[in-house]
Amino acid sequence: MALVVQKYGGSSVADAESIKRVARRIIETRKAGNDVVVAVSAMGDTTDELLDLANEVSPMPPPREMDMLLTAGERISMALLAMAIADQGHSVRSFTGSQAGVITDTTHGKAKIIDVTPGRITEAIGKGHVVIVAGFQGVSRETKEITTLGRGGSDTTAVALAAAMNASVCEIYTDVDGVFSADPRVVPKARKIARITSEEMLELAASGSKVLHLRSVEYARRFGIPIHVRSSFSHKEGTFVTDQPAPEGEPVEAPIIAGVAHDRSEAKITVVGVPDRAGMAATIFAAIADADINIDMIVQNVSATETGLTDISFTLPKGEVTAAMQALQRIQGEVGFVSLLHDDLIGKLSLVGAGMKSSPGVSATFFKALADADINVEMISTSEIRISVITREDRLDEAVRAVHTAFALDTDQEAVVYAGTGR
Amino acid sequence: MALVVQKYGGSSVADAESIKRVARRIIETRKAGNDVVVAVSAMGDTTDELLDLANEVSPMPPPREMDMLLTAGERISMALLAMAIADQGHSVRSFTGSQAGVITDTTHGKAKIIDVTPGRITEAIGKGHVVIVAGFQGVSRETKEITTLGRGGSDTTAVALAAAMNASVCEIYTDVDGVFSADPRVVPKARKIARITSEEMLELAASGSKVLHLRSVEYARRFGIPIHVRSSFSHKEGTFVTDQPAPEGEPVEAPIIAGVAHDRSEAKITVVGVPDRAGMAATIFAAIADADINIDMIVQNVSATETGLTDISFTLPKGEVTAAMQALQRIQGEVGFVSLLHDDLIGKLSLVGAGMKSSPGVSATFFKALADADINVEMISTSEIRISVITREDRLDEAVRAVHTAFALDTDQEAVVYAGTGR
Repeated sequence: MALVVQKYGGSSVADAESIKRVARRIIETRKAGNDVVVAVSAMGDTTDELLDLANEVSPMPPPREMDMLLTAGERISMALLAMAIADQGHSVRSFTGSQAGVITDTTHGKAKIIDVTPGRITEAIGKGHVVIVAGFQGVSRETKEITTLGRGGSDTTAVALAAAMNASVCEIYTDVDGVFSADPRVVPKARKIARITSEEMLELAASGSKVLHLRSVEYARRFGIPIHVRSSFSHKEGTFVTDQPAPEGEPVEAPIIAGVAHDRSEAKITVVGVPDRAGMAATIFAAIADADINIDMIVQNVSATETGLTDISFTLPKGEVTAAMQALQRIQGEVGFVSLLHDDLIGKLSLVGAGMKSSPGVSATFFKALADADINVEMISTSEIRISVITREDRLDEAVRAVHTAFALDTDQEAVVYAGTGR
Repeated sequence: MALVVQKYGGSSVADAESIKRVARRIIETRKAGNDVVVAVSAMGDTTDELLDLANEVSPMPPPREMDMLLTAGERISMALLAMAIADQGHSVRSFTGSQAGVITDTTHGKAKIIDVTPGRITEAIGKGHVVIVAGFQGVSRETKEITTLGRGGSDTTAVALAAAMNASVCEIYTDVDGVFSADPRVVPKARKIARITSEEMLELAASGSKVLHLRSVEYARRFGIPIHVRSSFSHKEGTFVTDQPAPEGEPVEAPIIAGVAHDRSEAKITVVGVPDRAGMAATIFAAIADADINIDMIVQNVSATETGLTDISFTLPKGEVTAAMQALQRIQGEVGFVSLLHDDLIGKLSLVGAGMKSSPGVSATFFKALADADINVEMISTSEIRISVITREDRLDEAVRAVHTAFALDTDQEAVVYAGTGR
């Protein structure tokens, strides 16, 4: 008997009717001869409502108590989902993250899973129960305190359970049909991706694709768990995120390009007039790191030789601009830079594809598409399988469409195979 | 340093403002030099809202999942209360029933506390934290499942914590000023009782007084914990439920009568034409007991000698009439009774006072008051310190007022001392 782990997000369990629908879906999987373990998020807006309540009581609630509060959300949804399954005549048990053995570190609000000890789940499965587990939450080994995994943490819960229990697949149910070659709201001709490697999925998730949580993909990759992203509103196959070879009968030739991601959540800070001496960049980025701020892209201009000064620009989440500016102001005397600029009106576009490694023409096609669309590129960064650029925010959608079309990803076109064409 | 255990009910923490007010009250107690452990109920209507959600999903939810669901209510209120206390600058930790070591049997929905192992609370108190504990919930020792204690269970949580931690007092905060000599909505002249014995309080709670949960009084009595019932909306002293002698300076002479309770929650079933043979009553009440129905008062008429038949009447909770009627119909052939009658329109009035034991005139005064008010008495039962009667429901309020006045309990009168007067 195969074990299937499923995850249902908040929009899939937003009300009683949705919960009953999900219950039927789980029972179908059970009736098809599988053991089923389900990770579930809080219903619809529950988390936001709890956050509002907390905010009414205190502007800066202790993170420990915030985790205690928020974990009530999945407790409610998991119990209701279990009731709906029982109502349809199937035996079922729900477990909190702590009961399910989701062991984390002690970082409230964004804890990392460090172990899964699913003894109670295994026992319940052995007795023939369907098992429902509260997503997004765990318990710290060290302090025995309740923790949460941060936004999107239910995906990680599902993958971690799948890994710990050696599941055959981890199905992530959401309100879209799968992972698309671009955000369909921006590119109406975006195509659903049937299979994608975990490496590509990681780059897409890190570049702004919101379908899967980055950490869940990392986790799945590390433990070799295939993820099937699909809609809870249809029975269509979604997207398989897997490094296993495609089953026989499916095309063996993988496309060069997986997709185009975009991201409006970043801002840019420019440190103007930095003395061009060794160690200046290190001092600047140490100050940023000390403030616990993650930066993404970095560009350092070529120094103007007559002044001996250079500019350093970097991107970071918009919400962290203020903290970063303050951290930099504190070291202005030490570094001796001239001024600070910040710019919220940027957009990031990323092209992702494992085939880039062996396809030298990709960059040329990419930049030509942007140039033809008259899009100015402000920063560039690349990995082995990704090219990212910063554009003006108001040109971002246009840029995404131009690149999507240039790589023949639009659904009414044939996929172009670049390998060996020298482009 | 004294340890004070406090309990706040749902109406005291109904919204953010109320929660902040309760937080200030807790901090006052802390600042007065006490260690404080607080048991808290779910906010206002949360429990009812969760019950509605459950009902939308399933008409008969599994009790285990119902407990999982309902315990989310106190999780929310305890975390918010902890946040409000932290916001006012005091260190605080909240604990679920399970974390607080509230160990119960395995009966979901109405579990009994069998032990309290407050290790985490003691440790937190030792570190100077105020401790907030989710009321109404525990964990079963045997199955490690989450349980609830049933309606009013937060009172029991508070008393159990007070007993386990040897608290100096258990303060039960509610929306009334204390325990009254009668329900003030029925008897506007009802007086607040300053001190009452646990035995009297038990009888009042069992007779329909809703201020304290019966089980919490039993628990407090067993462990000798003084309870102070008081309003969370004022700073007035409330009612002390204690068997300890009154402090010096207070009147030593205890009143004969503590108060008058009433109850509209019962119905009456009459088994008509029961053959007057040995064992018939036993057969009838065995059938009722097998259906897990608690009965209260029983009256058997004198047998009419010409027919050899008698009638047996008993009272029970209104909600259990249907089940009882069905259980009795199943034994009609065996017992050979003629018919069944049931009557929902009854009311129960109870007079409670430890002084009854030594005051022979109490019954006479009681029945004279009812007779003078032209109230017909349909059933009677007594204990050493209580007289209860069944009346028509629509005469109940009048009966309560008549008895309250007859025993000079009205606030604008002097309390009458019966001892030795021979009444």
